[in-house]
Amino acid sequence: MRSPLYSWPSIQGRGEYVRLALEDAGAAYDDVARGAGGMAAMSRMMEQGDTPPFAPPFLKAGKLVIGQTANILLYLGARHGLAPKAEAGKLWVHQLQLTITDFVLEAHDTHHPLGPSLYYEDQRGPAKKRSEEFWNERVPKYLGYFENLLKNNGGSYLTGRRLTYVDLSLFQIVEGLRYAFPKRMKTFERDIPGLIGLRDRVAARPNIKAYLGSDRRIAFNEDGIFRHYKELDL
Amino acid sequence: MRSPLYSWPSIQGRGEYVRLALEDAGAAYDDVARGAGGMAAMSRMMEQGDTPPFAPPFLKAGKLVIGQTANILLYLGARHGLAPKAEAGKLWVHQLQLTITDFVLEAHDTHHPLGPSLYYEDQRGPAKKRSEEFWNERVPKYLGYFENLLKNNGGSYLTGRRLTYVDLSLFQIVEGLRYAFPKRMKTFERDIPGLIGLRDRVAARPNIKAYLGSDRRIAFNEDGIFRHYKELDL
Repeated sequence: MRSPLYSWPSIQGRGEYVRLALEDAGAAYDDVARGAGGMAAMSRMMEQGDTPPFAPPFLKAGKLVIGQTANILLYLGARHGLAPKAEAGKLWVHQLQLTITDFVLEAHDTHHPLGPSLYYEDQRGPAKKRSEEFWNERVPKYLGYFENLLKNNGGSYLTGRRLTYVDLSLFQIVEGLRYAFPKRMKTFERDIPGLIGLRDRVAARPNIKAYLGSDRRIAFNEDGIFRHYKELDL
Repeated sequence: MRSPLYSWPSIQGRGEYVRLALEDAGAAYDDVARGAGGMAAMSRMMEQGDTPPFAPPFLKAGKLVIGQTANILLYLGARHGLAPKAEAGKLWVHQLQLTITDFVLEAHDTHHPLGPSLYYEDQRGPAKKRSEEFWNERVPKYLGYFENLLKNNGGSYLTGRRLTYVDLSLFQIVEGLRYAFPKRMKTFERDIPGLIGLRDRVAARPNIKAYLGSDRRIAFNEDGIFRHYKELDL
């Protein structure tokens, strides 16, 4: 059975972390909002039923409608071997995903420090300041944390001896920062050799490689979470 | 056995959502960082072991060290009857908590739009703009969503027929907004009668009432997530 995934159709968005998990697992899914009538279908899903999600992405799994990216991954991890089965490992992997969630929001706020409802063009000055703070303080803190965990775990995966959805999400973080801040990232990558190696190994996985070369992968663009604005990439 | 909880000692912070759950459940815990030598103990916990948390709050539960507020609540909910046991209900309650997590971060960013590392005093102008956007767009969207869910579920609890950790967290949201934005909140409360009723019922629960009257409850202040700055409360 194909799982219907509901995510904004013209950006990778938070849905991308779910797509990477589904693709790596070889799971069949429909990216509903990208199809004909899909946006209307997504809107309807948000207005009906007992568990309406606050926002995309959300996944329909049988009778369940599951929202919040990390929560969807918690569900998928258990079913597709993308997370440990034992409680301790499951909670640890989920905890790391929630830390990635925090980082993704901070990456978004580099271009939207005054809030998600205003245009970037109306907050260019604050965006410059926030981007500076992001690269001076936040990127080193977050990515240094993940780099250390990776190293302490032997260098192959963030946790345990097998790939989890957290490894897939960190691939996307590296890709996103490379797209949005190519200059800053080029310098910074020297500090995170482990994560760059992880990024390369994820990109080479057959299912991920096939996905990245397909039109199922939406290209980065300036409506998404990771946006390239030259003036923020000094 | 008393569970050691590690959270910043001088602010409610994100640890407050965990405290409310532990208190309502009548669970024994130590608020470690508030005790003698507690801050040093908290720092040590973040630098050792196989699963070091990125940031407080975190809870030690037997051999586990569990970080990220929503993840701690996921763990506690199952053990203290503060969440459904069946997977569908468990995921739904967790999903709502993650939406509350998003809202809490946006509430924080009203006074820190340029990032967490700078002082409020260095971002007063952007903070005014972000607060406007927060109250014009975000508060109505988030709290309108929870108000509707509460109504559709019969008005007593957000989900099911028993209180969950989400209800406790929404109590804290109402309290926080009342503290930080008393003027704006006074007007807005007319739109969320259900949530105000829920807030009152939570406050009247014996364990919560005892907690709120004790010195275990840290007072709101201008180092925390919800801060009262007159110029942001127009």
